[in-house]
Amino acid sequence: MFDTLAAMLDWFGIVVFTVTGALVASRKQMDAVGFVLLGTVTGIGGGSVRDMLLGRLPVFWVAEPAYLLTCVCVAFAAFFLAHIPASRYRALLWLDAVGMALFAVAGAERALLSGTAPSVAVAMGVITATFGGMIRDVLGGETPVILRREIYATAALVGAALFVLLSLAGASREAGLTAGFL
Amino acid sequence: MFDTLAAMLDWFGIVVFTVTGALVASRKQMDAVGFVLLGTVTGIGGGSVRDMLLGRLPVFWVAEPAYLLTCVCVAFAAFFLAHIPASRYRALLWLDAVGMALFAVAGAERALLSGTAPSVAVAMGVITATFGGMIRDVLGGETPVILRREIYATAALVGAALFVLLSLAGASREAGLTAGFL
Amino acid sequence: MFDTLAAMLDWFGIVVFTVTGALVASRKQMDAVGFVLLGTVTGIGGGSVRDMLLGRLPVFWVAEPAYLLTCVCVAFAAFFLAHIPASRYRALLWLDAVGMALFAVAGAERALLSGTAPSVAVAMGVITATFGGMIRDVLGGETPVILRREIYATAALVGAALFVLLSLAGASREAGLTAGFL
Repeated sequence: MFDTLAAMLDWFGIVVFTVTGALVASRKQMDAVGFVLLGTVTGIGGGSVRDMLLGRLPVFWVAEPAYLLTCVCVAFAAFFLAHIPASRYRALLWLDAVGMALFAVAGAERALLSGTAPSVAVAMGVITATFGGMIRDVLGGETPVILRREIYATAALVGAALFVLLSLAGASREAGLTAGFL
Repeated sequence: MFDTLAAMLDWFGIVVFTVTGALVASRKQMDAVGFVLLGTVTGIGGGSVRDMLLGRLPVFWVAEPAYLLTCVCVAFAAFFLAHIPASRYRALLWLDAVGMALFAVAGAERALLSGTAPSVAVAMGVITATFGGMIRDVLGGETPVILRREIYATAALVGAALFVLLSLAGASREAGLTAGFL
Repeated sequence: MFDTLAAMLDWFGIVVFTVTGALVASRKQMDAVGFVLLGTVTGIGGGSVRDMLLGRLPVFWVAEPAYLLTCVCVAFAAFFLAHIPASRYRALLWLDAVGMALFAVAGAERALLSGTAPSVAVAMGVITATFGGMIRDVLGGETPVILRREIYATAALVGAALFVLLSLAGASREAGLTAGFL
């Protein structure tokens, strides 16, 4: 049950981050390939860095191509829909926050399952949540997310820490997930 | 035979990308160490990221120092020759395109040999082809390649996809290589 | 004895680089979370890249959380003290040079212990010494270190090469460390 829930978080986070990558591609007026590349890198970048640091190789989307195909499809769909939102930048900020919350918890949980220390699990949550967006911003030529909106990094940190604390305290993992998410 | 051909592609790609890194160092008027660092990172960066994602560790140039030494020598030679081309930027664009074609096919092939799904192999081809140049541009303080010249990313994508398709179709691998290359 | 010495170098290098990351955060007027993130990434970034390339996974700070906690504490302390130095930029340059010397030798030594070729060990020393600072500068939105102060990259290269040469020559490793450090 829990594993499904964690996988669901991961999945939603990937879709949401792919959309943020596509939105940056939209702001930069890139073509369809640019949308797909930037969206996919943003969607799977944070998790890839986490897996490489933990030594869980090959990274998750190599073993499970569905992740990759989802990113490509979502980014491609975004290419045709990207002109619709009235304010792309506001949507970007919003989605970024949602994606970070999802990834912070999912990343911390993956690390705990790998048997890391609690502090390392929190760091992995923050890394999973922030690195996809950082790579997106660096490649897109924008000021990296870490500088612009520290409030989100703080949220990722608090979410991951709360989740790890509750997990340690033996709380039902669903409770930890919910708390980490808020 | 095929392995030799793939290794040859890899080798040429590395030399070509090392030269593009050295050309960026030249445009930025860096010294010899800058040439060597930027050239080497560009030459082996894409393949290193691919190997790390696939879990083929240590990465290729750790097991085979000849790659590393080649990059250093090529970059060092470029330091003394870099003032010769009339238009460095035009040369950079040209070599970048050639290197990308080489790496897209070589990267996809390495991934297929590791037993990944076809979609993942295409992604690995694109990653191998584009990440060296991205790292070069980010370190060199230029707008990343992905923004400036999407046409090249498209070419890498098409080349890798064509190669994977032909490989799956059981075509002679040499044919796949040639097609992916065009 | 030697292992302790190498570990000590690593440890000092991490603290010093964490401080440089915090100083960049200070120049950018980031909040406490920004200090911790940028300081930690700078402190453990170079070694993480080295470990991923060498396939020594999980990376060093996953197995040993003390590194991570040290970075967090140092960066947090720096947040309260960062306004004290008269000239933060000069301090940054100085500490960067010290950290690079420490990491160049420690990185080369780790690679040699992993059984790599001498040329690869030198490259690993340079990578360990320069990548933490590069990530810091890219994330902090500054011109990457590799462009601004090649003199430091040269120093890292010479230090790592000297250390590897002396190790090969069978000199007492302490001598190699000292020479590499100068």
